[in-house]
Amino acid sequence: MTQDSVKIHRGLVGVYFDRTKTTFINGKEGVLEYCGYSIHDLAENSTFEETAYLLLNGKLPNQSELSQFNTDLINSRPVSSKIIDIIRSIKDAHPMDVLRTSVSALSTFDEEAGDKSYEATMRKGIRLTSQVPTIVMAHNAIRNNKELIEPSKSLSHAANFLYMLNGETPSESASNLMDKDFIVHADHGSNASAFAARVCASTQADLHSAITTGIAVLSGPSHGGAAENVMKMVKEVGSPDKAKDYVTNLLKSKQRIMGFGHRVYKSQDPRAGHLREGVEKLSHEKGEPEWYEILVAVMDAMKPYQRRGINVNVDFFAGVIYHLLGIPTDLFVPIFAVGRIPGWTIQVLEQYEHNILLRPLLEYTGEHQQKYIPIEERK
Amino acid sequence: MTQDSVKIHRGLVGVYFDRTKTTFINGKEGVLEYCGYSIHDLAENSTFEETAYLLLNGKLPNQSELSQFNTDLINSRPVSSKIIDIIRSIKDAHPMDVLRTSVSALSTFDEEAGDKSYEATMRKGIRLTSQVPTIVMAHNAIRNNKELIEPSKSLSHAANFLYMLNGETPSESASNLMDKDFIVHADHGSNASAFAARVCASTQADLHSAITTGIAVLSGPSHGGAAENVMKMVKEVGSPDKAKDYVTNLLKSKQRIMGFGHRVYKSQDPRAGHLREGVEKLSHEKGEPEWYEILVAVMDAMKPYQRRGINVNVDFFAGVIYHLLGIPTDLFVPIFAVGRIPGWTIQVLEQYEHNILLRPLLEYTGEHQQKYIPIEERK
Repeated sequence: MTQDSVKIHRGLVGVYFDRTKTTFINGKEGVLEYCGYSIHDLAENSTFEETAYLLLNGKLPNQSELSQFNTDLINSRPVSSKIIDIIRSIKDAHPMDVLRTSVSALSTFDEEAGDKSYEATMRKGIRLTSQVPTIVMAHNAIRNNKELIEPSKSLSHAANFLYMLNGETPSESASNLMDKDFIVHADHGSNASAFAARVCASTQADLHSAITTGIAVLSGPSHGGAAENVMKMVKEVGSPDKAKDYVTNLLKSKQRIMGFGHRVYKSQDPRAGHLREGVEKLSHEKGEPEWYEILVAVMDAMKPYQRRGINVNVDFFAGVIYHLLGIPTDLFVPIFAVGRIPGWTIQVLEQYEHNILLRPLLEYTGEHQQKYIPIEERK
Repeated sequence: MTQDSVKIHRGLVGVYFDRTKTTFINGKEGVLEYCGYSIHDLAENSTFEETAYLLLNGKLPNQSELSQFNTDLINSRPVSSKIIDIIRSIKDAHPMDVLRTSVSALSTFDEEAGDKSYEATMRKGIRLTSQVPTIVMAHNAIRNNKELIEPSKSLSHAANFLYMLNGETPSESASNLMDKDFIVHADHGSNASAFAARVCASTQADLHSAITTGIAVLSGPSHGGAAENVMKMVKEVGSPDKAKDYVTNLLKSKQRIMGFGHRVYKSQDPRAGHLREGVEKLSHEKGEPEWYEILVAVMDAMKPYQRRGINVNVDFFAGVIYHLLGIPTDLFVPIFAVGRIPGWTIQVLEQYEHNILLRPLLEYTGEHQQKYIPIEERK
């Protein structure tokens, strides 16, 4: 085949590879719905647990369903002491490497390892939703030579996550904001990590393989790394009055301003607003209003570029929130993973249900029919 | 967007997503070339080490280059005792789960962890090429309560692999056949595992993440599982005279005959012949000619279906070879991974070099604008 007879879909931009009933994104108009429910309704009124139930079951739970789901989640929080030992032995690695390794190892101790039925995979997804926060915080304690904090048997998913950070029950506003953050991160179509998890599922690999894949892919800085980079930027800016110069200089040297623009959203990122309100409130509550002020100043400095569709995205606010909540910077990507487990799980289940091996093509552009010369005669 | 305005490329069949200078496959004519060199020349004349060098460097090595490459490979064979401890702690898991976890953990101890430069990634690929066999065989020893066999400091890649199985230096014909098997498995375009490794690399994740992804994806039975299933089939057939009935019955009930057909090869699989010769010879050498005879009988029984393009593939012979070499059935997929590390590595490097985030789309076909009803009012 000659080069011009083949169309190359680099980045698979604009290529639809399947159908979904989980998440709807209209990038042009900035719409995000989980199973038909607006992200705004969910962020305002729902909890992460309720949203996770919605994603996994396609419908919102009633009170008794939610109560059972909560119980299942809470019961799944502890992890095997063998996982803790593994975390200890690799404690100096980046938290994403530790998470990837631990989730991979978890399959060994899963009571339904090897069972790839719909029901077992769903139960594994629920277990992983609870185990991933435990792993992230166990590693954080271990690397800081602190005592492990047992996961709470009563706190919500978000509150328990913050509780495991330092053993203190978080304020309601802190846990509400963490909850909102997990809600807006719970699924987002076929971004690289979810897509790779689907590729994994398409070979009929199990959920632990698929979620390990999701974590491996999310660890790439151009996927999960934006919140971390925004925080770095905010620290570099230093104060609101320096934002304009900072932005101008970066753009002059053709560099990207972190937290702006999105492959899918060409207008506003519908998740961003929910975190904006939160960061404003939290910033004042913590007596550190300058963080929010710097963000606002950077947004102002970026206004002239918005007509090109470069708008603030969800990561722009997430980083400062995590920082204000006392979360170390290198846990920002793991937090993304904590929120995303229900999304990865349902996408794996969708892939299983109507499966076809995902196997695209590469065009070969090198030499052909090279003559094999014996090694003695090679120069 | 309405459903009929979107074209869905299910399985991404026929979709080209990028270009490569590594492996050329012409599925219609059954051609496979690595960097322009015919798989036949490489399988007949080359070694796995030489082929791995070719894939990684785009050219065949001269004697001094190959000698340095061999030295690098041999020096990379041992793994940290902490990896061995991790393997011990998860020894009851499937070997692919152990391999996935161990490779993920290896990043912690890699001397160039965090360095994603071309050169460092290349060196990591060489290290992983050598460490993966060590992990597979260390796990096999540990789960059988046998003493660990230190990797050889002189044997070839293939011979060392067989040596670590039981501490005996393999016969020349055994190690040659293992070598050929690794050569024909060293790369194969953008099949699901290599493609997922590229998706991972497209987020700028590191090589350990990408290879962990490759292993996770390969663990799916419809990707790496064929050789294992062929062996199961051969045992079920039991003797050559029962092959015809076996095949007829399976096809009548619309089941697949394992080891036939390939997503890409529509005529013959060019890799298959090299293993066929080997299995015939080995089968007689080991005094167990019936295995080969059963394979031949199954091929004969399948002849009427060949006009539909259903031909024997590489996995058809691989399973019996591994069995004759004394390798446990659940190590068949890990063997595939052992051979594939150079291929995954170079594909990650190709992705890094000319990168774009791999992010396709899903068409949403569910409900929209669902009304959020407070939980108290839900039924």
